[in-house]
Amino acid sequence: MAADLEHLCINTVRTLAMDAVQHANSGHPGMPMAMAPAAFVLFADVLKHDPSEPDWADRDRFVLSAGHGSMLLYAALHLSGYDLSLDDLKAFRQWDSRTPGHPERERRADGTWRTPGVEVTTGPLGQGFANGVGMAMAERFLREQFGSEVQDHFTYAICSDGDLMEGVASEAASLAGHLGLGRIVYLYDDNDISLDGPTSLSYDEDVTKRFDAYGWHVLEVDDANDTGALRAAIDAGKAETERPTLIRVKSIIGYPSPNKQGTSGAHGSPLGEDEVRATKEALGWDPDAQFLVPDGVMERFGAGGRAGAEARTAWTERLEAFKAADADKAAAWDAGWDGRPLPGMAGKLPSDAAGFGKEKIATRAAGKAVMAAFADHVPTLVGGAADLSGSTSTMVPGGDEERYTKESVGRNVYWGVREHAMGAAVNGLAAHGGITRPYGSTFLQFADYMRGAIRLSALQELDVAWVFTHDSVALGEDGPTHQPVEHLAALRAIPGLTVIRPADATEVSEAWRVVLEEVHGPAALIFSRQDLPILDREALESARGLARGAYVLREPEGEESAAIVGTGAEVHVALEAADQLAAEGIHVRVVSMPSWELFDAQDEGIQEDVLPSELPTVSVEAGITLGWDRYVDIPIGIDRFGASAPGPEVLEKLGITPGAVVDAVKELLEEE
Amino acid sequence: MAADLEHLCINTVRTLAMDAVQHANSGHPGMPMAMAPAAFVLFADVLKHDPSEPDWADRDRFVLSAGHGSMLLYAALHLSGYDLSLDDLKAFRQWDSRTPGHPERERRADGTWRTPGVEVTTGPLGQGFANGVGMAMAERFLREQFGSEVQDHFTYAICSDGDLMEGVASEAASLAGHLGLGRIVYLYDDNDISLDGPTSLSYDEDVTKRFDAYGWHVLEVDDANDTGALRAAIDAGKAETERPTLIRVKSIIGYPSPNKQGTSGAHGSPLGEDEVRATKEALGWDPDAQFLVPDGVMERFGAGGRAGAEARTAWTERLEAFKAADADKAAAWDAGWDGRPLPGMAGKLPSDAAGFGKEKIATRAAGKAVMAAFADHVPTLVGGAADLSGSTSTMVPGGDEERYTKESVGRNVYWGVREHAMGAAVNGLAAHGGITRPYGSTFLQFADYMRGAIRLSALQELDVAWVFTHDSVALGEDGPTHQPVEHLAALRAIPGLTVIRPADATEVSEAWRVVLEEVHGPAALIFSRQDLPILDREALESARGLARGAYVLREPEGEESAAIVGTGAEVHVALEAADQLAAEGIHVRVVSMPSWELFDAQDEGIQEDVLPSELPTVSVEAGITLGWDRYVDIPIGIDRFGASAPGPEVLEKLGITPGAVVDAVKELLEEE
Repeated sequence: MAADLEHLCINTVRTLAMDAVQHANSGHPGMPMAMAPAAFVLFADVLKHDPSEPDWADRDRFVLSAGHGSMLLYAALHLSGYDLSLDDLKAFRQWDSRTPGHPERERRADGTWRTPGVEVTTGPLGQGFANGVGMAMAERFLREQFGSEVQDHFTYAICSDGDLMEGVASEAASLAGHLGLGRIVYLYDDNDISLDGPTSLSYDEDVTKRFDAYGWHVLEVDDANDTGALRAAIDAGKAETERPTLIRVKSIIGYPSPNKQGTSGAHGSPLGEDEVRATKEALGWDPDAQFLVPDGVMERFGAGGRAGAEARTAWTERLEAFKAADADKAAAWDAGWDGRPLPGMAGKLPSDAAGFGKEKIATRAAGKAVMAAFADHVPTLVGGAADLSGSTSTMVPGGDEERYTKESVGRNVYWGVREHAMGAAVNGLAAHGGITRPYGSTFLQFADYMRGAIRLSALQELDVAWVFTHDSVALGEDGPTHQPVEHLAALRAIPGLTVIRPADATEVSEAWRVVLEEVHGPAALIFSRQDLPILDREALESARGLARGAYVLREPEGEESAAIVGTGAEVHVALEAADQLAAEGIHVRVVSMPSWELFDAQDEGIQEDVLPSELPTVSVEAGITLGWDRYVDIPIGIDRFGASAPGPEVLEKLGITPGAVVDAVKELLEEE
Repeated sequence: MAADLEHLCINTVRTLAMDAVQHANSGHPGMPMAMAPAAFVLFADVLKHDPSEPDWADRDRFVLSAGHGSMLLYAALHLSGYDLSLDDLKAFRQWDSRTPGHPERERRADGTWRTPGVEVTTGPLGQGFANGVGMAMAERFLREQFGSEVQDHFTYAICSDGDLMEGVASEAASLAGHLGLGRIVYLYDDNDISLDGPTSLSYDEDVTKRFDAYGWHVLEVDDANDTGALRAAIDAGKAETERPTLIRVKSIIGYPSPNKQGTSGAHGSPLGEDEVRATKEALGWDPDAQFLVPDGVMERFGAGGRAGAEARTAWTERLEAFKAADADKAAAWDAGWDGRPLPGMAGKLPSDAAGFGKEKIATRAAGKAVMAAFADHVPTLVGGAADLSGSTSTMVPGGDEERYTKESVGRNVYWGVREHAMGAAVNGLAAHGGITRPYGSTFLQFADYMRGAIRLSALQELDVAWVFTHDSVALGEDGPTHQPVEHLAALRAIPGLTVIRPADATEVSEAWRVVLEEVHGPAALIFSRQDLPILDREALESARGLARGAYVLREPEGEESAAIVGTGAEVHVALEAADQLAAEGIHVRVVSMPSWELFDAQDEGIQEDVLPSELPTVSVEAGITLGWDRYVDIPIGIDRFGASAPGPEVLEKLGITPGAVVDAVKELLEEE
């Protein structure tokens, strides 16, 4: 009888998935049909979750890395009692519905979730796998910092052949094994089918051995329909606390579709009405019924959520006791979940040469000083560099105790040479919550390696920071393989990503402050390798202008005839050019424009004040000129790859000089 | 005595590397010092190469995947007799020298190599590893097609911890194991050190087990200085013909620097003059000597090249016999090495609706028809999709016989869900030579996953094709995770990449023709998922205009007052808008602009003919507007992420409509 009800629950997931895909005439039925038993076991019996409170900090996290099987998740959420109705399922893949084609993490303007229970946006393969690694890192960090009475949960995922083929998942698996993230339990839908056909066409490695090599605990379940074996494997995975667990679940895609199961035909298209009927008949289902949820199914599926609600009540009491016992820890906990620093941070940041103790400093080095200044105010900052911590200068002070390793849990993560997994894990840290502005860092050049993750941070409006140093050809001798030229433009191209390239140390302070206190969604901080003078803010406008994206750094002394706009290191080129022009009686304003996105968000009046549309304007930036035409008349940049030579020489040869700017201004004024 | 000379050779590599890095005051001495014995063994005794003819088609390929150790390669090339002088080594990392910071594959305008013997540009980690996989694929393909008398060589590489941590290498290793590429012999510099410090900080997986899981043959050499063991392992690797070989070479970074060996301090900075002296003393070297090449060293090092020159003479005779025996094969061989199709291809391509047998066809489907039409004329086309061959419609006809698998060697590769390795392996196919326009294909969205490889194709001007389909939000229900919006702009940002987005099937034909016959360097072909009408070229301008990047598709019938520019599917929106405007008495030209890069390469006069600077102009493209301001007054696009819903509805909601274009034109004309 219990087994019958279980089958009914599982087959409800299957038929809902078939029906929704058929109704939308679009989608992926095969994976939900195959993995319905796993979804049932997880949501009804395993997950610690409370459908009435999807934001509960101590819930288990579940990631559908194989996001194309979104109907599996939507069906499970509906049947578990989340605020997701049958009508929502019927609107699968329709405009503005709560059930988009792939799961989308989206908090609406009113603070509710578009789809409650969706932890993270998935679909691009491998990302969810690596997001879960970040979530498990967050859980471990918070558990160690605040105690297991307030943070103590597991991270689950369902992933596919495609996920495991992706490099980002390989990197993340290696990292998770290295860190010994024992709270990870992943189910691998091992179905021998991918889009091109049988995986034997392209993929026949020994997955068990590979994950064993990474330091994982690997289990196998021979039949996806054997719920007893699934439960036993999950229990064994939970019991293994030193290693992450991968459970290979042998499944038949599209099971039990009489004509399509076990083929790529069940993967990415509706089964067709006849085949849906035939499959329902094979399941002993009424072939005429659509979106049918038989009696008793919601009751049985809801067992997990009911148990979770009780657990949450007990947790809430523990949290209150925890907060009452230690006000500092309570403040740190709350700041982490708010995603903001503790109060009073801004006053601690250095804001002039005296504060940095130098006259010249690379903005990457200024970043290190600023991080040291705010470290105490951001107790849950977790992040690090992809094997470049010394070069990107991104870590908080603290030595061995601040290391996040298998043995210790500090704030400084050593991601290894794994940019893409770093990106996706940072997204997971942010999606988990409790961590203020998790970050990842590498050379700007290698933003290319992690672009898939950067995009998803923007799509989900995750509060992460990307710290990219060695930001132009000025890095010099390493040459064009390491010199970014198109990367600023390529990052600016991503909707919702706030790119900030400070001109000097004082702008670095302000940039970090703005990112920590004000920016919503991901920010990319772009820092120089080379030393730059610290601008004299007595003589020049305050760096607080950075928050508006662009500001007049220096007004001309005589009658104004043009403007020069710079970003980052090239602000100094702009100042020098303005000085040269002034010596010739041509007076120009100098605008520092660290962020297009912050500037574009200003009122038109402010924009017009900074860059008057009638004022002839030249920009200078050591990168491609793509996009600058929107702001200026003549953009000076580098529309080619760089070259290996000392940095100053490369800048000179490629025309990033005050002289080039002077010539451009004169050319503009002659055209007037 | 022989052992003494061997040591002298090896220590010459070490001291040249130390001296060059010290002289440049920049660079990476540690790896060349550690792996000098391997370089000696490879160049002097193992590699089949002829320094006088670095283009020899049947040479062994050697890839320095750990490109930061460039001085290892430069020293070995100099000592082997390549056209690379001691003065060139002294110009290490200087402007326009032949010894840039990382190895750069660059053919100069006069046809010579900037650095003869550099097979591929390396530095971004993991790329070289995967390039070598592509090279081995090329060798195997050519050997099977043309016979081992003309193609029969190995592919070697030296790679590092960082290489093996990168996802792109994981993907490539899995692919190489799957394909059983037995001609690969890679040396892994297993030194337990990366930039952040000991690899134990971030990397402690069981590499042997992992590669065994991929299907590799893994050997170990306990001491990098044991040249006998190195030779034996390489011989064993060559003898294993069914599996690629990875040789773990335990080395000490910076060996034998008394104070820096075995630490990350030897990795990325000069040792310092004192330490260079101390190290020379430890080697029994004159500490005052700089760039010293002792007597006998070039003679001994040159043994490999002398043997190779003899082998090349014999090969040349075999090649002549091969060509004399079969004119068709000879023509195919030559076309492959020229990187161009056989003559007469253009006439075979469909150029109108009749040719495609349809009135409407998605440009991805048109691509399939065009590939079928030219397949016989490009006998060495090798490529495929990343597990999306059915969706991107990129393969040549031929069924099982055209499959490139472990068992058979056809032209259609199944890359698996491994976009980044696909990109890097395609680069390797191109860098190897003999293959006309190798290609990789996936959804445009996932260009993000392989951006590191796309950039390197452009930096090296490799003649590859990237075929990206599902090119806009019009793909519909899969939603924003799969809908590109910023990707066209992000690809256009890469210097040297020719991006072409055809408006219809006839432009697809022309695009492939231009890419195969005319384009130098990489091209990205951007195709639609949705059906598009085949434009009536009797009534409209010929698609041959595509070669100029933009052309007037239709002149207005009345007095011209504006222009509308479209790309791809949006050309049809532009035509519709023009019709609506004509009905209101406003006459506009319609410009199809499939490629900015081809257009930018035209004379100013041609550009002015197509897009007169005084003519009010509106563009429409279903992507972000970044960069369009350079060409038009009002760009219509999508400056946000897409959404999950049927494609036509998404286009409508996001404003990609004739009505929006009509309004923009009227707005412009009112401003006049």
